[in-house]
Amino acid sequence: MDETVKITLPETGIPRHWYNINADLPAPMAPVLRPDNYAPVGPDDLAPIFPQAVIEQEMSTEREIEIPTPVRDVYRQWRPSPLYRARRLEKALGTPARIYYKYEGVSPAGSHKPNTAIAQAFYNKAEGVRRITTETGAGQWGSSLALAGAMFDLDIEVFMVKVSFNQKPYRRAFMESFGAHCIASPSDTTAAGRAVLAEQPDATGSLGIAISEAVELAAQRDDTKYALGSVLNHVLLHQTVSGLETQRQLEQVDDYPDKVIGCTGGGSNFAGIAFPFLGERLRGGPATEFIAVEPAACPTLTKGRFAYDWGDTGHLTPLTKMHTLGSAFMPPGFHAGGLRYHGMAPQISHLTDLGYIQPRAYGQLDCFAAGLTFARAEGIIPAPEANHAVKATIDEAIACRESGESKALLFNLCGHGHFDMQAYTDYLAGRLEDEPEQMAEQSMALSGLPGV
Amino acid sequence: MDETVKITLPETGIPRHWYNINADLPAPMAPVLRPDNYAPVGPDDLAPIFPQAVIEQEMSTEREIEIPTPVRDVYRQWRPSPLYRARRLEKALGTPARIYYKYEGVSPAGSHKPNTAIAQAFYNKAEGVRRITTETGAGQWGSSLALAGAMFDLDIEVFMVKVSFNQKPYRRAFMESFGAHCIASPSDTTAAGRAVLAEQPDATGSLGIAISEAVELAAQRDDTKYALGSVLNHVLLHQTVSGLETQRQLEQVDDYPDKVIGCTGGGSNFAGIAFPFLGERLRGGPATEFIAVEPAACPTLTKGRFAYDWGDTGHLTPLTKMHTLGSAFMPPGFHAGGLRYHGMAPQISHLTDLGYIQPRAYGQLDCFAAGLTFARAEGIIPAPEANHAVKATIDEAIACRESGESKALLFNLCGHGHFDMQAYTDYLAGRLEDEPEQMAEQSMALSGLPGV
Repeated sequence: MDETVKITLPETGIPRHWYNINADLPAPMAPVLRPDNYAPVGPDDLAPIFPQAVIEQEMSTEREIEIPTPVRDVYRQWRPSPLYRARRLEKALGTPARIYYKYEGVSPAGSHKPNTAIAQAFYNKAEGVRRITTETGAGQWGSSLALAGAMFDLDIEVFMVKVSFNQKPYRRAFMESFGAHCIASPSDTTAAGRAVLAEQPDATGSLGIAISEAVELAAQRDDTKYALGSVLNHVLLHQTVSGLETQRQLEQVDDYPDKVIGCTGGGSNFAGIAFPFLGERLRGGPATEFIAVEPAACPTLTKGRFAYDWGDTGHLTPLTKMHTLGSAFMPPGFHAGGLRYHGMAPQISHLTDLGYIQPRAYGQLDCFAAGLTFARAEGIIPAPEANHAVKATIDEAIACRESGESKALLFNLCGHGHFDMQAYTDYLAGRLEDEPEQMAEQSMALSGLPGV
Repeated sequence: MDETVKITLPETGIPRHWYNINADLPAPMAPVLRPDNYAPVGPDDLAPIFPQAVIEQEMSTEREIEIPTPVRDVYRQWRPSPLYRARRLEKALGTPARIYYKYEGVSPAGSHKPNTAIAQAFYNKAEGVRRITTETGAGQWGSSLALAGAMFDLDIEVFMVKVSFNQKPYRRAFMESFGAHCIASPSDTTAAGRAVLAEQPDATGSLGIAISEAVELAAQRDDTKYALGSVLNHVLLHQTVSGLETQRQLEQVDDYPDKVIGCTGGGSNFAGIAFPFLGERLRGGPATEFIAVEPAACPTLTKGRFAYDWGDTGHLTPLTKMHTLGSAFMPPGFHAGGLRYHGMAPQISHLTDLGYIQPRAYGQLDCFAAGLTFARAEGIIPAPEANHAVKATIDEAIACRESGESKALLFNLCGHGHFDMQAYTDYLAGRLEDEPEQMAEQSMALSGLPGV
């Protein structure tokens, strides 16, 4: 055989700690504010909806946070995930670049999301919680929490945006196969849902409404908490297991990335692959570049404002300083449901503002074309979200071909496309279009910001 | 962490040889006969549709056949596949049994099928073939050959049974994503297809017709050959990579199976996991039991006759002695498309007739129930085909609980259910039924056998 293609680690190679980038930030992040009086949020404000361990992680500045043994026990069902050297893609592109990709699609839910779902389920179970509520749009996050619920014997209630509930029955079946309960949102089981339905009986829902319903239920019941699948510090923390494994895997082949690339919706898969390397840079390590890739139709980092904003459309969540397109932003219906959030993780926003992360946006047609180039070379059909990282990596590899430089490019292949074949069907049939880019600015003007 | 759950091998653990059970058969197999004059088939009869290397393997009695380096190079994209100790399932069942499963769903196509697709594509490419034709029903095999075509730069033409072509657009999109060309069968591109359409313009097709179309095209064109995804000796040979890896993995944990279990449609995944162990038994090794599990609605091994029969409905293929329900058997539409073949691999039929393999049949409701028990414990949703093996394993594990015996049970989890969520949707909604079992015998009476 030729040189290594698949770089694996034994079960014992699963990290024992997550990496918390808050320990290495060159400047402190802006505080999170209460939505009612704009005072800084404290642990008590979050206690109704999150378990204590999660709240502590959200606010911690410890560099290493131990991964509990029961979480590692479940992780090893698919972790350490493989790191690939993309030799066939390199050959197809004729590039001197060394392309690596971490493949998170090997998880039972098919993406990186279980890395935090398993951890959050464990902490909830340990604190006596019996039920977790959440929202899901495309279904990746709901699927992951459903899996986690089955592993830790927790009831999972997923408010699924009604349009997805109807259009994506397979994702729903996936969640129900693991015993989760799916509710089309807006629903009549919450005040938030009933209020929407009273005004628009045919409402097809939105992530913002689904969040309100899930949070409302969690806050009302003593045995119930809420879980979020991206954006927050503790979620990004749990995802670092992926980048930490990658560091060990690259050591095996004696390489180090010149550029680390990931797609960004809420920011969690990008943070997972990038933060351990970015932490090394912040502590004086190599000057690795970090490229966050977003859809041109939801250009949070490239076109949004870095300002305080609400996390949801209903303005019930705390305010965080982040890159945002405005909480009323309605992204067009492009095929990367995981990248359709108006805001961005505060940690990623902060580090982008400080110049450590270079954001970049692409239209979906270019991304699908890149995804097919990748699939035909490497054999894996990426999720539409991951195609954004693939596109940026291919562009960088072509730049290497033109400059003759052999750079090491690392990207996070955060999920497979098995549940997104309709998108590929539409692309192959020529039915997809790129969305106009200027929508973001129009929405910004309409949304308004809290002005703090 | 507890004891090992995921038993892995490094890239170098991919076997260098496949295992050919023809070297160890206690009695010779009945010869394959030409359909026209019932004379034994020779290499020349197969040359128009298969490459020489494949024909040699079909007839070889060498125990070890080398896996070419370019095939191992592609295998390592997902091989060695993991072997799991199902500790959570054991706990859920309260069984003293040690349950192991080999997981072939990690392949890019999601099943064991690429093990032979990659090999067949390589041999065709090496002999100058430019195009491979094949048929597909549910789409697993077509997807795998599409992947193999992309890896070896071959054109792939897949005749997809028309009813599947229309009902399973995602499988079609999967194949087209890898650059394969899908044709709804019956089609007007072949004489066989046109003959059917002339009689029934609305024909929804069958695997038998699709085989005829694919073979016709391959036989006509010099640059084109045909590939089959199960049944034949060389296909079963290529699948043994799975059982050979499992032997090494079980050595690592110092265990050996008391029972080896697999589902059987054409027989290839069962042979892949079982033959290396069955070979050891034939050479005087441990008295392992081998359980072949089939659907009660297509009970080839449990209800079929062991006799010469045609491989296709149109009676164009050679005659093989096998367990068969008759070539006119039309299985009902149960949700395990990969197990809906009227015949069985001659090697498996022969070894079943000699008493080395115990066949068993289950209805689909029991299998889906077992699949959900498995998913909620182990985190993986099995393909409906694989659920048959899961069901038998759970039954055996419960028998161990009742007898107090700690047996080692090994089964092949030959694929995931990501493309079969409609089946789970139907099951969860209570819309599935078990099919009547007596259909097989009625069909046998109707079909007729060649009588040689």
